[in-house]
Amino acid sequence: MPSSVRIVEVGPRDGLQNEKAIIPTAAKIELIDRLSATGLRTVEATSFVSPKWVPQLADAAEVYAGIARRPGVRYPVLVPNERGYERARAAGADEVAVFTAASEAFNKANINASIDESLERFAPVLERAKADGVPVRGYVSTVLGCPYQGEVPVAGVVHVARALHQMGCYEISLGDTIGVGTPGKARAMLLAVAEAIPMPALAVHFHDTYGQALANILACLEEGVAVVDAAVSGTGGCPYAKGATGNVASEDVAYMLRGMGIETGIDLDALSDTGRWLAALLSRDTGSKVTRARAAS
Amino acid sequence: MPSSVRIVEVGPRDGLQNEKAIIPTAAKIELIDRLSATGLRTVEATSFVSPKWVPQLADAAEVYAGIARRPGVRYPVLVPNERGYERARAAGADEVAVFTAASEAFNKANINASIDESLERFAPVLERAKADGVPVRGYVSTVLGCPYQGEVPVAGVVHVARALHQMGCYEISLGDTIGVGTPGKARAMLLAVAEAIPMPALAVHFHDTYGQALANILACLEEGVAVVDAAVSGTGGCPYAKGATGNVASEDVAYMLRGMGIETGIDLDALSDTGRWLAALLSRDTGSKVTRARAAS
Repeated sequence: MPSSVRIVEVGPRDGLQNEKAIIPTAAKIELIDRLSATGLRTVEATSFVSPKWVPQLADAAEVYAGIARRPGVRYPVLVPNERGYERARAAGADEVAVFTAASEAFNKANINASIDESLERFAPVLERAKADGVPVRGYVSTVLGCPYQGEVPVAGVVHVARALHQMGCYEISLGDTIGVGTPGKARAMLLAVAEAIPMPALAVHFHDTYGQALANILACLEEGVAVVDAAVSGTGGCPYAKGATGNVASEDVAYMLRGMGIETGIDLDALSDTGRWLAALLSRDTGSKVTRARAAS
Repeated sequence: MPSSVRIVEVGPRDGLQNEKAIIPTAAKIELIDRLSATGLRTVEATSFVSPKWVPQLADAAEVYAGIARRPGVRYPVLVPNERGYERARAAGADEVAVFTAASEAFNKANINASIDESLERFAPVLERAKADGVPVRGYVSTVLGCPYQGEVPVAGVVHVARALHQMGCYEISLGDTIGVGTPGKARAMLLAVAEAIPMPALAVHFHDTYGQALANILACLEEGVAVVDAAVSGTGGCPYAKGATGNVASEDVAYMLRGMGIETGIDLDALSDTGRWLAALLSRDTGSKVTRARAAS
């Protein structure tokens, strides 16, 4: 079990891109600044995917220009390809993330490319990032199940993760995009990937669609993972099951870690206040049970 | 890790007694009959606590008389004292449960008795049950925290659990009544109790107030516990934090166990259908993420 965990806050990106409500640019900036003030060390700020696909984040450049960059906090942004990388860099981003899936069917439906084609798209991004001294994070989605093909072989997850790592991604985030995984499978998947990539270069990214996220995170912590993606207030939903819940809530992860004596550097009250504020802004109930309980007590 | 787990369904009792809505007797009977048809082997049916304290279950005798007793399924009922035991037996109950807390402050507020006084109240219940051949389950609440005194020493949990076991309870259910526990503390508490009582005589009972229930259950499964209390649709709420969530949802526990290859005997679709039906009856959203995701997909 790690003594310290870095929570990668993905609410402003993975959360907001899947919320129905589109919030003003100023509110997005306030969200990111509130989050960086909680002690979070990584706040994924936005996405430079085409606004045609993600209208919620069409103001990516304005958001990025508006945030108050806090020393010691990293603000990666998602980029789909070289064009996105250029837009992100022009906006001032100094860390980026690329994404593909472990499922062929998902990649085909989501980005109209095979897994290998998606990796080819990233090659120039990785090259330019290396030349620019820009760290690149890699996301692998559908690692425990796919809305189109169902089961996803662990070997495929290992293949994609290894490829991203070899291309230069400093960290690989393994995502259960549809939240179907359970602890035994999460553990086995992580251990299989950790045979190809050192554990310190791995992160886990669980959605709570079936309520399993914290249990899955616990199983992965027990195997030594020390980076956990989460979204404040559990924002995000699930585009493959309308009405279902989204990312695991950062507050709930931080609460568990604090209770286990694992250091995160996060002020839980400040994080929970931010979650409550965001839920009100989105006109929805918070997806964090910690924040709900705090509000109720 | 156990190969098989018995889920003790507590929705008709611990769930309904903490819901605002009072549902008709016929609906309670239908709920219990639906639950016993899912493959659950234990369905706690109702409570013979005074209707003055638990008006939701004032029709305990009528409910008990109305259910279709399925062979192989046990239907324990809660009894507070000898008078309650007599009422339960008159209604036909052949298994009962008694309850106390590991926190002095909680017992004082909840049943106006010290821990030792509450144990004295149960002595005649345990004696008569033994003479009648009636198995008695013992609940210990507030094992990981108390709304009145905060921290609850593990030694106190061990003391109460051992006393109930020595008095003749065949199984002791360890309850995190306010849902504040996290996996490390849950594991340590269970292991401490298991030094005094054999693990096969222990059950865990988590509320999901802070979203930690499944992670806590996983930690306890890893230590060998094989009986888990849960309530269909996550009914129950938390009387100490109005608006907060209640018992861990049986569907979510069953989903995790199925995914881990642990046998429960439960038809998850039938259980989830029952959860959805119950949520509609109570005019509330289901507290089960599995049931929400199934309904959304």
